[in-house]
Amino acid sequence: MIYEDIKTKVVQAVTDARKIKPLSSSITNTVTINFVANTQIAAGGSAAMVYLPDEGEALAKVSNSFYINMGTMFPIYEETLPLTAKTLADRGKPWVLDPVAVGIGELRSKILKQFKEYKPNIIRGNASEIIALAGLWNLQGGSESKVRGVDATQEVESARQAAETLAKFTGGAVAVSGIVDLVTNGNDTIYAYGGSVLMEKITGAGCSLGGVMGVYAAVTDPFSAALTGTMIYNEAGRKAEQEVAGPGSFIPAFIDNIYNLTAEEVSESKIKMGGRE
Amino acid sequence: MIYEDIKTKVVQAVTDARKIKPLSSSITNTVTINFVANTQIAAGGSAAMVYLPDEGEALAKVSNSFYINMGTMFPIYEETLPLTAKTLADRGKPWVLDPVAVGIGELRSKILKQFKEYKPNIIRGNASEIIALAGLWNLQGGSESKVRGVDATQEVESARQAAETLAKFTGGAVAVSGIVDLVTNGNDTIYAYGGSVLMEKITGAGCSLGGVMGVYAAVTDPFSAALTGTMIYNEAGRKAEQEVAGPGSFIPAFIDNIYNLTAEEVSESKIKMGGRE
Amino acid sequence: MIYEDIKTKVVQAVTDARKIKPLSSSITNTVTINFVANTQIAAGGSAAMVYLPDEGEALAKVSNSFYINMGTMFPIYEETLPLTAKTLADRGKPWVLDPVAVGIGELRSKILKQFKEYKPNIIRGNASEIIALAGLWNLQGGSESKVRGVDATQEVESARQAAETLAKFTGGAVAVSGIVDLVTNGNDTIYAYGGSVLMEKITGAGCSLGGVMGVYAAVTDPFSAALTGTMIYNEAGRKAEQEVAGPGSFIPAFIDNIYNLTAEEVSESKIKMGGRE
Repeated sequence: MIYEDIKTKVVQAVTDARKIKPLSSSITNTVTINFVANTQIAAGGSAAMVYLPDEGEALAKVSNSFYINMGTMFPIYEETLPLTAKTLADRGKPWVLDPVAVGIGELRSKILKQFKEYKPNIIRGNASEIIALAGLWNLQGGSESKVRGVDATQEVESARQAAETLAKFTGGAVAVSGIVDLVTNGNDTIYAYGGSVLMEKITGAGCSLGGVMGVYAAVTDPFSAALTGTMIYNEAGRKAEQEVAGPGSFIPAFIDNIYNLTAEEVSESKIKMGGRE
Repeated sequence: MIYEDIKTKVVQAVTDARKIKPLSSSITNTVTINFVANTQIAAGGSAAMVYLPDEGEALAKVSNSFYINMGTMFPIYEETLPLTAKTLADRGKPWVLDPVAVGIGELRSKILKQFKEYKPNIIRGNASEIIALAGLWNLQGGSESKVRGVDATQEVESARQAAETLAKFTGGAVAVSGIVDLVTNGNDTIYAYGGSVLMEKITGAGCSLGGVMGVYAAVTDPFSAALTGTMIYNEAGRKAEQEVAGPGSFIPAFIDNIYNLTAEEVSESKIKMGGRE
Repeated sequence: MIYEDIKTKVVQAVTDARKIKPLSSSITNTVTINFVANTQIAAGGSAAMVYLPDEGEALAKVSNSFYINMGTMFPIYEETLPLTAKTLADRGKPWVLDPVAVGIGELRSKILKQFKEYKPNIIRGNASEIIALAGLWNLQGGSESKVRGVDATQEVESARQAAETLAKFTGGAVAVSGIVDLVTNGNDTIYAYGGSVLMEKITGAGCSLGGVMGVYAAVTDPFSAALTGTMIYNEAGRKAEQEVAGPGSFIPAFIDNIYNLTAEEVSESKIKMGGRE
């Protein structure tokens, strides 16, 4: 893969999402559910959220893509999440998993184990979550213990093996979010730069990125979708930071930038092809 | 009904909501629940949200009006929603129904059918939802299939018969939201204009409009309440759009305008008496 | 206690929260959950929200402090809330209770009664909630009936006895929020001034204050934590009001100010030592 190919795919994904307006439904946490919906819509998609089993199944059938975020678990998820993931897998619908807080609670662990069978097309998390999920699935690079890197590159680098083995296993893409981001399909690994320190000072920068990757997953391949989402977040965050006084005003400015950035601008957000160093 | 009567009623409703500060409680979806509360308060009301059966019943008794939005269903709603709607009907408390996503899921359909008996004083939805609800209730103009109009007027026009038969059946009002809006009591039908393209680029413009209609339903008749809500949304949206850079900054500006518009300004938002054309 | 001691403690709490970044987890209502998380992060803390029993227990063990807000009850709370509160009490973890809407619903009353045993380190509410909770716990100054003061000082004053007996009973602090605020440890009672009329025109000023008190409770004693939260809210509200056009734009500006105020500025927010007058 060469840089110009990537750039072309990113431009196409941003453009197509705005033109096609795919329905990317979600089962997501209550903390950031509004922010997920608003960022998905700002990126060009349509949003719909449900909790009940037959409603997850129904939306899985009619949606162009789907986003499952494990943030705030409800008891009914024992039925809803496996049924929804199975429906998505059976129909070949692209779906994104955010394994938030993997390791906390029995039901969360049980369901995350079940998801191994349904192979999410994109998995997005921070370094410790990606490592923990690979551990839960008994894949190389995984671990039950959480790892914290010493600096930004080390943090994401610590999850590189877990991310690559997860991606090889699913046949999709894995994105590790941090100060530097990593996106891999198991063979090609790309580092992405930008964003803002204010993205760590609000809730939902990660959750909503998963939702936006869901929108792009409806119009392009998983690797390009994960990368496009990461790049629009890095560029929108970078620009929004310059316009605001703090994390509160960052939120609306960030959404505005997702909405207003040109496809060309997104494609120029800084990335680096990640041959082993 | 003549234009001057309508204008007087709208001015009165906006003024009274701000003076009386009615409690308009809600059972509403988790996606836009915060936006519903903030717009209700901006319009002068007080907001309270619950999920449990006896809490829905208790709030139905003490509130001035109520708003039920079917967006994100929880299992407990099987008990909560019919009990709350029955309590509202028994006490003659005005209530607003937003039949979001009618057609998805067994429980949603079951409860929406039960609501026929409790006759919501205002029903608010987009064209396809109004048509589908009329279909679920076996009323003229209803259909199980979704309809999309070719242009703005056609879209809302496609739901006119369903809206009018629903309003005649409940004895209240029905509002169809779209690029052009329609409000009817079954006999008088009014078209309303304004708003902003950015209202489709955020989540919750419709949900929160239902909540704000609930506030006005506490201080005026259902038809005037539905119309006042529609008109303040059209005018606040129109003005907010001029002040912002995108959908993110539109949200706070929109709330500010609901709070700051004078009653006179709301009453001058463009409407057209809708004799059959 | 003298004024200079208080000022020193407030400066220390604001500074330490930003340096230590304590994890203050919550079980809180769906209406304002996003605002709670964003204000907690703006104050320097980390936020995590759950609903399930074993997840509440797990977070109680690993968090530096905890916040329980009774706003929107789910059925599973019958198990989750007592188990979480017991875990917190057993481990001596500081926790904040916001008894929102005490008096509505059987489950809410049952759980609030159970909390008497687990002695929340900080209780925060408006005057009527504090009075009602003291009543539910059969403490002096409590009452089942709601009381509304005639003016701002009278309102908070009406709950002073209930607040002081609650604080003596728990050995922690109680904060009564109103136009004038009151913070007491049962012996020392302080009145705090400032804030903004716009804080009553948005949802969640109170809920999120409880969450922010939770952040400070992880780094200082309950009385100083409750006071620091109250003072940063009063000062951030006062400044934000000057910057905005209405309640919508107040929200981001308020968060910005929580983030940007210096510890010194917070400590200079107006308070008055409350000897009986």
